[in-house]
Amino acid sequence: MSYIVIIAAVISFAVTAVSGRFLIPFLKKLKYGQTILEIGPNWHKSKEGTPTMGGLMFILGITVASVVGFVLMLIFDKGYKTENVRFVAGIIMALGFAALGFVDDYVKVVKKRNLGLTASQKMVGQIAIAIMYLLIVFFGGDSNTTIWFPFISYVDFGFLYYPIAVFIIVGFVNAVNLTDGIDGLASSVTFVASLGFMTVTALLRAYSMDVIAAALAGGCLGFLIYNFHPAKVFMGDTGSMFLGGLVVALAFGIHQPLLLIFFGIIYLIEAGSVMLQVTYFKLTHGKRIFKMSPIHHHFEMCGWNEEKIVFTFSAVTLVFSVIAVLSVVNLVN
Amino acid sequence: MSYIVIIAAVISFAVTAVSGRFLIPFLKKLKYGQTILEIGPNWHKSKEGTPTMGGLMFILGITVASVVGFVLMLIFDKGYKTENVRFVAGIIMALGFAALGFVDDYVKVVKKRNLGLTASQKMVGQIAIAIMYLLIVFFGGDSNTTIWFPFISYVDFGFLYYPIAVFIIVGFVNAVNLTDGIDGLASSVTFVASLGFMTVTALLRAYSMDVIAAALAGGCLGFLIYNFHPAKVFMGDTGSMFLGGLVVALAFGIHQPLLLIFFGIIYLIEAGSVMLQVTYFKLTHGKRIFKMSPIHHHFEMCGWNEEKIVFTFSAVTLVFSVIAVLSVVNLVN
Repeated sequence: MSYIVIIAAVISFAVTAVSGRFLIPFLKKLKYGQTILEIGPNWHKSKEGTPTMGGLMFILGITVASVVGFVLMLIFDKGYKTENVRFVAGIIMALGFAALGFVDDYVKVVKKRNLGLTASQKMVGQIAIAIMYLLIVFFGGDSNTTIWFPFISYVDFGFLYYPIAVFIIVGFVNAVNLTDGIDGLASSVTFVASLGFMTVTALLRAYSMDVIAAALAGGCLGFLIYNFHPAKVFMGDTGSMFLGGLVVALAFGIHQPLLLIFFGIIYLIEAGSVMLQVTYFKLTHGKRIFKMSPIHHHFEMCGWNEEKIVFTFSAVTLVFSVIAVLSVVNLVN
Repeated sequence: MSYIVIIAAVISFAVTAVSGRFLIPFLKKLKYGQTILEIGPNWHKSKEGTPTMGGLMFILGITVASVVGFVLMLIFDKGYKTENVRFVAGIIMALGFAALGFVDDYVKVVKKRNLGLTASQKMVGQIAIAIMYLLIVFFGGDSNTTIWFPFISYVDFGFLYYPIAVFIIVGFVNAVNLTDGIDGLASSVTFVASLGFMTVTALLRAYSMDVIAAALAGGCLGFLIYNFHPAKVFMGDTGSMFLGGLVVALAFGIHQPLLLIFFGIIYLIEAGSVMLQVTYFKLTHGKRIFKMSPIHHHFEMCGWNEEKIVFTFSAVTLVFSVIAVLSVVNLVN
């Protein structure tokens, strides 16, 4: 099995890396240079020439590699398992989120309306995609509604599982979206988390999820070639929402969405910083906790360079990923 | 057990981080600013004011945390196992290498002889320390001479185990030493590898080694606060040889020195680049493969900044560490 996983990672990396050669000039040519979100720090103006929607690169790489890996797995390895429904549903969900993000990016770039879709349009779309995922899983024959509490036990949530799942899915996809605000940040953090997922899924023998995790790792790494500071391309909402969708698909694929507290610690901190900032601002009629939110901009304004922020956030993800892995070692060992 | 491991990591991180507050001004005051090795790139001259021997910070943190964790383990967890001999021998070996590195640093800094000990003095000292490790293990009652070949099987090398072990130990300690040539590089790469070791030792239930790995991770992270570019302190040979000693102690502690091919991939590449460069230079009477060796200087001369090199080398270590972890998952699962 581990060979198939490694093949998936390599295919994903190669397709993503090679597609950049063709896609980035194309995105530039089409003048898909995103006008930087107005509320970002001033010095980000210098990034206005960088094209966005680069997420298309790893969407291609990860999807191709996942499907190839999945087919190889079905041929050479185990037969049909319910977990496989979650593979299909997960890929569809991630592509759904990518499509939503693409519409958003497209509106921003082509219509020059910087804020893209309205918040409520986005939210409705996201909830619909999350529900679609759960419907595919349910009608695909997987009515497992348990969630594992790390270091404790599995708990069956019954019907409550579904609204909880929608909440977690939509929350995390938006959190990953917020994390994507600095060169290489979302891709690095997701790269580290995906390697954690690879280990956890291997331990749990959740092989179809292992294939997704490996493809995710390869795709993020291939993208980082272009996305590391100074970035030649941004992933856009297209990319960040796809990544978010895939990460929650992995977590729900192994019935362990709470592992996202560890693997997704940075996404949570990013989203939490925005919520804290806004709440505090409203309560105090204008005071701020952070110099700017999401929190990566706070560190930028404290004088950290982008590489240092990316490195630190990746290291934090790595530490928490190891804790998550150890919790699963505890579970299976 | 996982609680003890996390306690060890936290203690190590805290002691290392706090000791920096006191030690760095002290090292500076004593004018322990290392004169940069003459054969480094020119722009490294600007680093001349940075004090060295900062490795003392994590040597303190890791040693204290390992001993505390080990004692907690003996009290609250399993009783005596042969693996524990390798804990004691490993810590002693690492401290031995640190002492050797300290002498080297001291000669460099205080005597202002930039090249420290001669190569043969170093080598004799290193071989003596490696032999001491093996003697402690042997007379401590652990006559296990097997080595695991990842993805294949255990092989018993009999008496041949001992010269092979000396070769691997001395080779890797020097390779880690070579890796320490860019702000945060050796500490980052070793940090990532140590998290891999934490996972592997947990899987193998090699708890005393898990304690060392956790302490190593915490110490590297605590040191990175000061060592990340722009570095406020260097670890010196004191630090890099200690790290090397601890890494090989971990690998031999679980009878899996060949895992170092994965966890230590960067150390191998660094050492390999030097060997290739020197051999090629001699054979061709003056031609070079790399612009400069060890290979991190090559990338610097290609225009990569230090953060990018550290990030890339850490990512490579992470990928190979996951492969190593998966090989052990295969073994135990």
